[in-house]
Amino acid sequence: MSETIQPAIILVRPQLGENIGKAARAMLNFGLTDMRLVAPRDGWPNPAAGPAASGADVILDNAKVFDTVEAAIADCTTVYASTVRDRDMPKPVVTPRVCSAEMHAAIARSERPAILFGPERSGLSNDDVALADTVLTVPVNPEFGSLNLAQAVILLAYEFSQAVDKTTPIQPAHPDGAAPKSEFLGLIEHLEAALEGRGFFRSEDRRATQKRMLQNLFHSAGWSTQEIHTMRGIIRSLTRDGQGE
Amino acid sequence: MSETIQPAIILVRPQLGENIGKAARAMLNFGLTDMRLVAPRDGWPNPAAGPAASGADVILDNAKVFDTVEAAIADCTTVYASTVRDRDMPKPVVTPRVCSAEMHAAIARSERPAILFGPERSGLSNDDVALADTVLTVPVNPEFGSLNLAQAVILLAYEFSQAVDKTTPIQPAHPDGAAPKSEFLGLIEHLEAALEGRGFFRSEDRRATQKRMLQNLFHSAGWSTQEIHTMRGIIRSLTRDGQGE
Repeated sequence: MSETIQPAIILVRPQLGENIGKAARAMLNFGLTDMRLVAPRDGWPNPAAGPAASGADVILDNAKVFDTVEAAIADCTTVYASTVRDRDMPKPVVTPRVCSAEMHAAIARSERPAILFGPERSGLSNDDVALADTVLTVPVNPEFGSLNLAQAVILLAYEFSQAVDKTTPIQPAHPDGAAPKSEFLGLIEHLEAALEGRGFFRSEDRRATQKRMLQNLFHSAGWSTQEIHTMRGIIRSLTRDGQGE
Repeated sequence: MSETIQPAIILVRPQLGENIGKAARAMLNFGLTDMRLVAPRDGWPNPAAGPAASGADVILDNAKVFDTVEAAIADCTTVYASTVRDRDMPKPVVTPRVCSAEMHAAIARSERPAILFGPERSGLSNDDVALADTVLTVPVNPEFGSLNLAQAVILLAYEFSQAVDKTTPIQPAHPDGAAPKSEFLGLIEHLEAALEGRGFFRSEDRRATQKRMLQNLFHSAGWSTQEIHTMRGIIRSLTRDGQGE
């Protein structure tokens, strides 16, 4: 039901087939599938699109082609125009993150949002933007704002996917778990005994400090059981008679 | 001071000059300037990079070239490897959003973080990844994860910029402000009088409902003073004697 509604990604008068292909790839990377083309300059299908899609052919094969923006947005409820604000166009302006949140909310109401992306060279015309509810502007470097079509699409697709992404933001080094403290303590004891035998703890004064340093060194390492075994092998190897220092 | 430190964006054994140029453009779009190249396949400088940078030549001109990853990361404190997790590599894995937050925190401590991006075809080798502290993985569509080099760079650069971006997430349609309620009320009064004259309110029963509908219609429009003037001009035009309906 509502979860199968996808935002329509509408490329308005796109020029190069290669860029249509790259936009398709960017979409599929983040699970977007509803591509629409308004009056593509070189017709459709375009042989340059497939290779640039790098395997996202399913998006191109299912792309719908329209003569006008009006026809492309006919079944949509809210339309965003990807462009920079024009002071003469009285539209609210949102960031990709807000646009994504709004689109997910719309889809949850069984509505279909759409985003218009303009031609590579000129961007959306004022007549295109006038058909939109809201302007969508990526906050770029004010001294170098030069997003190409596929980059604009991928940033939006990424944000749309991030809004519902369930990836654990920080995954530990050892998915099967770090070693239990008993193993760390065993390692430290092993090392202390080895160092004791070699006269590492020269003065009784510094012994407590040095042992604390060893504790900090090893507990902060976050090693796995395997890595602790490796360290103990290293200690055994270094303390073997007739070898080492 | 610390605010001038930039994360190092390190392209490891990049193959095509075009992709180096696109990565430079992606970096500058979001204000990143420290590009480093490790053993670029076709040497450096590469004549294909400039055109693809679309004006971000300053990044290419200042790119530093190294023979090894070790040399490229020598002055960095924390190194992220942009790749997917390899079960055999015991590294924590973070999302671009977490990586960005961590990098800003490192820079605030005057540290210099770095991110390694691998060659287009093969990605980073296990030896490259072993030099990193942490793996950075973009959560892509599990059925189609096909990010190219410049796309991976732009997503990271975008997140790094978003973490400190001050853009107002929703800007109103009228930066100079919507019209005050007095002007909306004046418009509604004007319209009611015009409709009254034309017999729009046919029954006394429905008059209250219809007037409430007019209030809702106009207060929700969020128009500017100029737009209210335009609406009043429309009403005057439609009620002019001998014209209109």
